[in-house]
Amino acid sequence: MEFLTGVKQQKMVRITDIVTEGMEGKTVFICGSVHAIRKIGEVVFLILRKSEGLLQCVWEKGKKQKDLFSIDFIKEESTVEVEGMVVCEARAPYGVEIHISNIKVLSVPTKSLPLPVAKWKLNTSLEAKLNHRPLALRNIRERAVFRIQEGIVRGFRDFLYSQGFTEIHTPKIGAKSAEGGANIFKLEYFHRPAILQQSPQFYKQMMVGVFDRVFETGPVFRAEKHNTKRHLNEYTSLDFEMGYIEEFTELMAMETGFLQYMMQLLKTNYQEEIKLLGLSLPNVERIPQIRFEQAKKRVSEKYQRQIRNPYDLEPEEELLIGKLIQEEYGSDFVFVTHYPSKKRPFYAMDDPSDPTFTLSFDLLYKGLEVTTGGQRIHDYQKLIKKMEERGMETEGMEQYLSCFQCGMPPHGGLGIGLERLTMQLIGEENVREACLFPRDLGRLEP
Amino acid sequence: MEFLTGVKQQKMVRITDIVTEGMEGKTVFICGSVHAIRKIGEVVFLILRKSEGLLQCVWEKGKKQKDLFSIDFIKEESTVEVEGMVVCEARAPYGVEIHISNIKVLSVPTKSLPLPVAKWKLNTSLEAKLNHRPLALRNIRERAVFRIQEGIVRGFRDFLYSQGFTEIHTPKIGAKSAEGGANIFKLEYFHRPAILQQSPQFYKQMMVGVFDRVFETGPVFRAEKHNTKRHLNEYTSLDFEMGYIEEFTELMAMETGFLQYMMQLLKTNYQEEIKLLGLSLPNVERIPQIRFEQAKKRVSEKYQRQIRNPYDLEPEEELLIGKLIQEEYGSDFVFVTHYPSKKRPFYAMDDPSDPTFTLSFDLLYKGLEVTTGGQRIHDYQKLIKKMEERGMETEGMEQYLSCFQCGMPPHGGLGIGLERLTMQLIGEENVREACLFPRDLGRLEP
Repeated sequence: MEFLTGVKQQKMVRITDIVTEGMEGKTVFICGSVHAIRKIGEVVFLILRKSEGLLQCVWEKGKKQKDLFSIDFIKEESTVEVEGMVVCEARAPYGVEIHISNIKVLSVPTKSLPLPVAKWKLNTSLEAKLNHRPLALRNIRERAVFRIQEGIVRGFRDFLYSQGFTEIHTPKIGAKSAEGGANIFKLEYFHRPAILQQSPQFYKQMMVGVFDRVFETGPVFRAEKHNTKRHLNEYTSLDFEMGYIEEFTELMAMETGFLQYMMQLLKTNYQEEIKLLGLSLPNVERIPQIRFEQAKKRVSEKYQRQIRNPYDLEPEEELLIGKLIQEEYGSDFVFVTHYPSKKRPFYAMDDPSDPTFTLSFDLLYKGLEVTTGGQRIHDYQKLIKKMEERGMETEGMEQYLSCFQCGMPPHGGLGIGLERLTMQLIGEENVREACLFPRDLGRLEP
Repeated sequence: MEFLTGVKQQKMVRITDIVTEGMEGKTVFICGSVHAIRKIGEVVFLILRKSEGLLQCVWEKGKKQKDLFSIDFIKEESTVEVEGMVVCEARAPYGVEIHISNIKVLSVPTKSLPLPVAKWKLNTSLEAKLNHRPLALRNIRERAVFRIQEGIVRGFRDFLYSQGFTEIHTPKIGAKSAEGGANIFKLEYFHRPAILQQSPQFYKQMMVGVFDRVFETGPVFRAEKHNTKRHLNEYTSLDFEMGYIEEFTELMAMETGFLQYMMQLLKTNYQEEIKLLGLSLPNVERIPQIRFEQAKKRVSEKYQRQIRNPYDLEPEEELLIGKLIQEEYGSDFVFVTHYPSKKRPFYAMDDPSDPTFTLSFDLLYKGLEVTTGGQRIHDYQKLIKKMEERGMETEGMEQYLSCFQCGMPPHGGLGIGLERLTMQLIGEENVREACLFPRDLGRLEP
């Protein structure tokens, strides 16, 4: 009988193995994709693309190579196993290069790439990039975006674990949606009507009664007919819900804590990608908070802009709030608090001192909403009253409501749009740049 | 202007804060749900339920309490803030109790729980538990299952990060499914037909061309009409895909590494839940591997069972393989390798030494399949040939196929059913016990 006993030590090394001290002069095996080949006279530079980055491998004509192989036949985007000697070379990435003694070809492409991925910058339209997404992402700057995105999600989870949150997985197919409204994808579930959840809202609230603090990172679905640079019809939502809060500002404090932790994680673990993308991470030491009304008023005064909709912020207003806060307080982020009750869902807790407003907030990042959150009603009677006022039916919400009947702590939470947060962090203009395989009005593939 | 500067130090303490040295005699504030109230003569025991566990709080009649409050009016499942002194008490959980000086009630239930959640064991039918899921989960043994589940997912991610994998988020709505077949949920996507993905298979393969090693933890959807104890129509899949493998056994080695890491994580971070559920974690030091044919034959011989279907394992056969391996090698886990090509998807790599079998495997845990994996075809021509042999169309798969045309490394991967793995680990009989809100043929709610 044979047994598996754990991860096998691979013959192949990683870039990090090579750049450690004492490796100079050693012969190593390293595999990767042939990102680019450049011939300069008798010397051939083969740039190997690995998950970690690019590695320069050098082949010199006439130098003794192990087997008979001709580098002339090696195509870009072939995958190869390179055998060679580690040599320090200050001008190469990581300060090392490999002097090739042998190459074993693992696979050969049958056509060339539709996009010049080996270029530093893919100067192609977003449309073209999305049409060839899995290939466009072979460009190292394009893919770096999604390593940064990994860091954001990882930071979110690790920070919340440290704060006593429990991770949950809630169903995406349901009989009824949390937020209601028309923007819901419908499907048939074994001859019954069903929907795709717009948010894990009801589930995370119910789970606060179980674990006090919970979070989820998962897909949400919005059948909105918006075709803008900041909307996706499927996106990843970073959600948390937190029981036993004394005031709703604790939610914003928790998010600030996450942002601080996450930026630190990016600095330490994702330095390579930060460098590639030329990012300077925002300062999140302190994030200003401003009331909705006040923000509206200040923007109207400062930028001579008429208030058209007193109950909501228009995208342009959000941009101007971001601008104002940046100009006056030097912060890319701002919490806008106390949104009008009218524009918030029924479960939002009204401000006891003025019930036309709610104990809620959005977080704007460079003038774009990346988070919506707030305190929720935890009293059953108040919840029912609010639903009645809005003419809502309780049908299909029995389980949700019974949690409140059986006792729920004061609580609140928030949802962060992962792609929007990524987009602002990397300084892109279109949220599709920050989504591996975007789903929008026109795009169901790849 | 007010600012948020990070997580606020809360007045409320956690159980871990109380059990640290030097806390005896200190007055603390602690909040939670009133799990149970027991009156014994002049003494009232109030058991506080917190995310971390149960805390005993004691109220003695006649002892000086701060404010005038009557403990007689406090109901179970109220949420409260207890003020009191930390006192060592060997018989209490954690070896401490709180001598109450004041209680502030945060919320009061309006009806009593439909299930006796304060009992050690909820002796209720699964049906009843699922009908009242968010309430049933307030039972501390019921909820402990999902803390264990958190540990599994957390272990999966952390281990793979350490092995150079990149986390990805792929779309759940698509135009075409990876595996094909009839068991697909269909929906309308802005007047176009769309489906819910059965697996992130195509996406993770495409992303191997980008990041070499990728993983995803997310929901998958199967419209299977099975109504068994081990099927769910929506479940969480732990997927990874790994490039530059030299042989398919590296995939099993990686999974073994994950299991070892995860069991260790459970031991160190989830001791409380392991104790609550009375679990003994399986030994995963070495996991046997056995060929499909051989497993079938050995089971047939040892347990006098006729082989009915030579191409697949029946559930009963899987159980018997688990039994055999446990009897002969003392392992709860076994990798069954080299499944017949006929029963594996088109992208499975056939065994060069006998193409009627594939370089694939299932992992059985106590006789239940918890993982399916294997090496994939990375050569474009071979992939096309296999598709033609099966009479498959390439329409809708252009992006997937173009990745192979443009060069892909040798690779393979696997998918783990989170709920099944959890179910076997906690020793449950029905996979619904290991899913927060199960979706099956009859259940769309809560």
